[in-house]
Amino acid sequence: MIGIAVVGYGYWGPNLVRNISEAAGAHLVSVCDLNVDRLAAVKSRYPAVTITDDFEEVLRDPRVDAIAIATPVFTHFKLAMQAMMAGKHVFVEKPMASTTEEASRMVEEATRRRLVLAVDHTFVHTGAVRKMRELVENGLGDMYYYDSVRVNLGLFQHDVSVIWDLAVHDLSILDHVVQERPVAVSATGMSHVLGEPENIAYLTLFFESKLIAHIHVNWLAPVKVRRTLIGGSNKMVVYDDLEPSEKIKVYDKGITLNPNSQAYGEKVHQMMVGYRSGDMWAPKLDMTEALKRELDQFVECIEQNSRPITDGHAGLRVVRILEAASRSLAQRGRIIELEEARRIA
Amino acid sequence: MIGIAVVGYGYWGPNLVRNISEAAGAHLVSVCDLNVDRLAAVKSRYPAVTITDDFEEVLRDPRVDAIAIATPVFTHFKLAMQAMMAGKHVFVEKPMASTTEEASRMVEEATRRRLVLAVDHTFVHTGAVRKMRELVENGLGDMYYYDSVRVNLGLFQHDVSVIWDLAVHDLSILDHVVQERPVAVSATGMSHVLGEPENIAYLTLFFESKLIAHIHVNWLAPVKVRRTLIGGSNKMVVYDDLEPSEKIKVYDKGITLNPNSQAYGEKVHQMMVGYRSGDMWAPKLDMTEALKRELDQFVECIEQNSRPITDGHAGLRVVRILEAASRSLAQRGRIIELEEARRIA
Amino acid sequence: MIGIAVVGYGYWGPNLVRNISEAAGAHLVSVCDLNVDRLAAVKSRYPAVTITDDFEEVLRDPRVDAIAIATPVFTHFKLAMQAMMAGKHVFVEKPMASTTEEASRMVEEATRRRLVLAVDHTFVHTGAVRKMRELVENGLGDMYYYDSVRVNLGLFQHDVSVIWDLAVHDLSILDHVVQERPVAVSATGMSHVLGEPENIAYLTLFFESKLIAHIHVNWLAPVKVRRTLIGGSNKMVVYDDLEPSEKIKVYDKGITLNPNSQAYGEKVHQMMVGYRSGDMWAPKLDMTEALKRELDQFVECIEQNSRPITDGHAGLRVVRILEAASRSLAQRGRIIELEEARRIA
Amino acid sequence: MIGIAVVGYGYWGPNLVRNISEAAGAHLVSVCDLNVDRLAAVKSRYPAVTITDDFEEVLRDPRVDAIAIATPVFTHFKLAMQAMMAGKHVFVEKPMASTTEEASRMVEEATRRRLVLAVDHTFVHTGAVRKMRELVENGLGDMYYYDSVRVNLGLFQHDVSVIWDLAVHDLSILDHVVQERPVAVSATGMSHVLGEPENIAYLTLFFESKLIAHIHVNWLAPVKVRRTLIGGSNKMVVYDDLEPSEKIKVYDKGITLNPNSQAYGEKVHQMMVGYRSGDMWAPKLDMTEALKRELDQFVECIEQNSRPITDGHAGLRVVRILEAASRSLAQRGRIIELEEARRIA
Repeated sequence: MIGIAVVGYGYWGPNLVRNISEAAGAHLVSVCDLNVDRLAAVKSRYPAVTITDDFEEVLRDPRVDAIAIATPVFTHFKLAMQAMMAGKHVFVEKPMASTTEEASRMVEEATRRRLVLAVDHTFVHTGAVRKMRELVENGLGDMYYYDSVRVNLGLFQHDVSVIWDLAVHDLSILDHVVQERPVAVSATGMSHVLGEPENIAYLTLFFESKLIAHIHVNWLAPVKVRRTLIGGSNKMVVYDDLEPSEKIKVYDKGITLNPNSQAYGEKVHQMMVGYRSGDMWAPKLDMTEALKRELDQFVECIEQNSRPITDGHAGLRVVRILEAASRSLAQRGRIIELEEARRIA
Repeated sequence: MIGIAVVGYGYWGPNLVRNISEAAGAHLVSVCDLNVDRLAAVKSRYPAVTITDDFEEVLRDPRVDAIAIATPVFTHFKLAMQAMMAGKHVFVEKPMASTTEEASRMVEEATRRRLVLAVDHTFVHTGAVRKMRELVENGLGDMYYYDSVRVNLGLFQHDVSVIWDLAVHDLSILDHVVQERPVAVSATGMSHVLGEPENIAYLTLFFESKLIAHIHVNWLAPVKVRRTLIGGSNKMVVYDDLEPSEKIKVYDKGITLNPNSQAYGEKVHQMMVGYRSGDMWAPKLDMTEALKRELDQFVECIEQNSRPITDGHAGLRVVRILEAASRSLAQRGRIIELEEARRIA
Repeated sequence: MIGIAVVGYGYWGPNLVRNISEAAGAHLVSVCDLNVDRLAAVKSRYPAVTITDDFEEVLRDPRVDAIAIATPVFTHFKLAMQAMMAGKHVFVEKPMASTTEEASRMVEEATRRRLVLAVDHTFVHTGAVRKMRELVENGLGDMYYYDSVRVNLGLFQHDVSVIWDLAVHDLSILDHVVQERPVAVSATGMSHVLGEPENIAYLTLFFESKLIAHIHVNWLAPVKVRRTLIGGSNKMVVYDDLEPSEKIKVYDKGITLNPNSQAYGEKVHQMMVGYRSGDMWAPKLDMTEALKRELDQFVECIEQNSRPITDGHAGLRVVRILEAASRSLAQRGRIIELEEARRIA
Repeated sequence: MIGIAVVGYGYWGPNLVRNISEAAGAHLVSVCDLNVDRLAAVKSRYPAVTITDDFEEVLRDPRVDAIAIATPVFTHFKLAMQAMMAGKHVFVEKPMASTTEEASRMVEEATRRRLVLAVDHTFVHTGAVRKMRELVENGLGDMYYYDSVRVNLGLFQHDVSVIWDLAVHDLSILDHVVQERPVAVSATGMSHVLGEPENIAYLTLFFESKLIAHIHVNWLAPVKVRRTLIGGSNKMVVYDDLEPSEKIKVYDKGITLNPNSQAYGEKVHQMMVGYRSGDMWAPKLDMTEALKRELDQFVECIEQNSRPITDGHAGLRVVRILEAASRSLAQRGRIIELEEARRIA
């Protein structure tokens, strides 16, 4: 049994606590938060769990093998480093850190100490995203584009822009679904509240191939949209996370090209690009709660000394793009090469 | 009665011919096309109309007061200039020309000769877009963003990119609905067919105010989407052109700001940004066919020597943005100032 | 070439005229209507076609092999009988007659004279309904239910109830898709306009098997709905005619039964009925215009002396149910056996 | 503080327990269930609450002022009667009893002992249904129809038909929203599992006015639908309970009648029935959890000796219709007068 402590019992912490308390191979040892009321809530629901407002106490507790960190982003680096230095495995909320520099050091620390460092890219562990990866690997053909819209009204953050809050989901999904890595990013956006970070943003990611990815995030939309279009040379996918059951729809649609066609005048085009349209298909999805699957995997990795799917490297890749996108955003879409971003970081 | 000739009887021409033949103040004199089969189709449906494959004949015909041009974009400039030089009023398909230079000269020619030059920005004349303008002028408050998605499968053009084919609609709507003019544009996109122009593109338009506009166009999408979100400080709008009747939905939603709040730590944010959510409302729309309304207005402008809503200046503003966007697209999103674009043009 | 005359150029007549004028094996000879303006409209659009307001003239015309009847329902019987007595094949709008008695005599007349009598059950010839029949025959398993909703605002008829106007579509589809024939009908409904027939109605059809069919029709609904659910023991179908492309969705869902289970108390139920849920699938549909396909078949039947899919027998079966449903409606749902209906008719 | 015990901790009981434990004026005293595991679950979550498998103990407990009953339907009568005889107020799940006879005796007992008897018609206490009642009372005009569809896959019951399981919701909503009471019912349906009750059913309710109500319930549908259409002479409503926020849409649509029109032939109809179509409007709804509101009201009624909105009389009216509908169902739609039902009961 792996003993786990949870640090931070705010918005997401209760989900971690519930899943850990029900996990087969794990044991919820303690919960740490600075807020006394929150700790009381933990105690009334989980009487056997130790509560504390002192992180040092968690670090010293020999029953604790691993620490799950669900605190504000700017604290991730410090808490995770302290945890690892105390020999604890780490499960950290996304984004894993505020800067590429911090994320890199966390990855190095985990590597050096042979600890498991998992980043909570929850969506990657859903049935829908896992099915998308399967489709991308087998069926879609060459990747043409990945287009995601993630908009709703609220919840404005005052320390990070909408990119760090919402686009992080799309970037982590993209990182998992597509094996190719982006080489450059251009981002535009706007803040509509004086002194606050951008609440609307658009990211374009370029790749060495013809793949293009685009992410639209917005905290100020009248309707909630969670929709991704993926275009491949053989098939296309619509992923609508708000659909209760048919979240993934696969369309046997596309264009056909006839490069050998002799062509004169207007006829050229008609001979070269044809359209095909076949069946649509919504595969049945595994409906296991993503966080449960993810935590089970985290425990398994600790036991078997293996690497989780969404490990520190994945978290670092996402932070690197977030950072580059933020720089582009500040310069109205100036292209930022991700190599360049790497060098600077 | 204003005598009108139609040049070009391909995709859109038949709509012009039908509407002109039914218009109250106009008289359909002749139809000109290079294709004999198309001319035969006109004759069988409209036996009284003159058909010809010789544009010069149209120019010489004294019964013709105005010429409607529905030919490929690259021919607009030449045909329109000839028409105006022959003293004919002009109704030209969008985009009005291939370059800002051409469009400028067309506007100058019309001004010098005191001719009516109308550009067929059809959507501007729909009940939905007219209602949006009304809402923007009265009710939405300060404009925050304009976000449009116009995607579907096909029809690939081989001479112009998807921007000139699809984004032109959004730019003409935006030009009408919002009184402020954009000052810079950043565009990204990709071509997925070797040797062909971009089939997917994303445009961001910047304004002097905090307004930001974004347009997503795609010829290679598995589903058809025609959806625009408009965010204002008081209300927000969803315009879905595929809805059979409730195309415009107005949401009484938004954020409330409390700039005077004393704030420390985490509390800052919560005190500054609040959310409000009220009724949603779908106003009844005028369902008159847009092209009918537009042609009636064209005839009226000729009779009264007045300017149509979508005149050459509107057409020119749209072409200027298309041109700048194309330049940005070629440089992976490099910002193009529209003043700069103007100087170069 | 089969010469065809169209009688009645009101709501549906123009569609017949257009399709016949474009049909490969047919030749549009003449159009007959009592209204002079309508005839003028025909002439301007089809200058070569004979127009007349005298049905006798059509009957005498030796160029006319077949007559398509698109007049009000109460005239179908008389016109069709006259046409057949004059040796003409008949294509008649649905419902084919006002009573079972009339419909029976029409069928007898066609049989005796070896003429083709086709009833325009248009929906039967759509790609969607043809696909449904294919699925029912191969894949759905035992039929459990057929549930259809066909509601919208208007157009109120003053001579027939909403059953004769709207349910006729569902009954003709059901007649084609399901091979079993209903044995009894119960109908309820209401008129909300004094002195007018029912504008809302609900029909339940019983069969000898466990199949049950239900049809909801309404002229006074705020939204338009055209949706049919079909439940089978293996698969289930949703047919939504307002969907632009995915009109048919096949669900691999259902219940599993374990009749041998030993069961005590609450456990009984859980052991006997299980649920399964698999993929959803929207097959590509043939998008040929139904009326074109139907008229091509009519012409082919004349040439080859064969029977159309929607022949007089199909039309008669539908009228018999409409008549029985009307009697049940008048008695607040009293069950009407269709054998009984047959005897009375 | 009103002391409350909950009997039955199966599907719905946990919701009662949670809401009572959080209610302002109430105190959760004890939970009773025959299943030891369920009681253990209660204890671990609510350590201070008494648990017992002996209902007699609950009846004897002087701390218990009221008992909430969430056991199978066939036990409601016995448990509620025992509770009232012990002087306890009662909050009972719907349907309140298995027969009209039982429900009547429960109402009498509550009246005689001046105890509060509330029936858990949860939907009546939602923001959506409360808004519908408001609209029906003020704005819709004369009521024309109430049409509800409540279908999904599962959960088959083996002791009661789908009417008692699903239609009970619609009947309780209808009872609240419409002040007029139905006078007769016709029901049809079918069982598709040998030896099990009907899993699909259709109810038509008749009123003295021109109002007609229809309810479609089905345990074997491939998709989940929760949609009610209400037609009034002035406005019409669509209530879609699956919509996340705009559950109620009000349409300013309808027909206009001109009873004084002189009319001959076909013109009659056109002069008498016109159509009007105006704005659509989705009012903001109170999103308070219905059960919380309902339990707060129950507590208030006990304190103030007043009657809850969904009292025993409402519960009895619903059971009376369920019973009559079941009788009609067994006779393929034979009309059952509700007076007759009353006499027999």
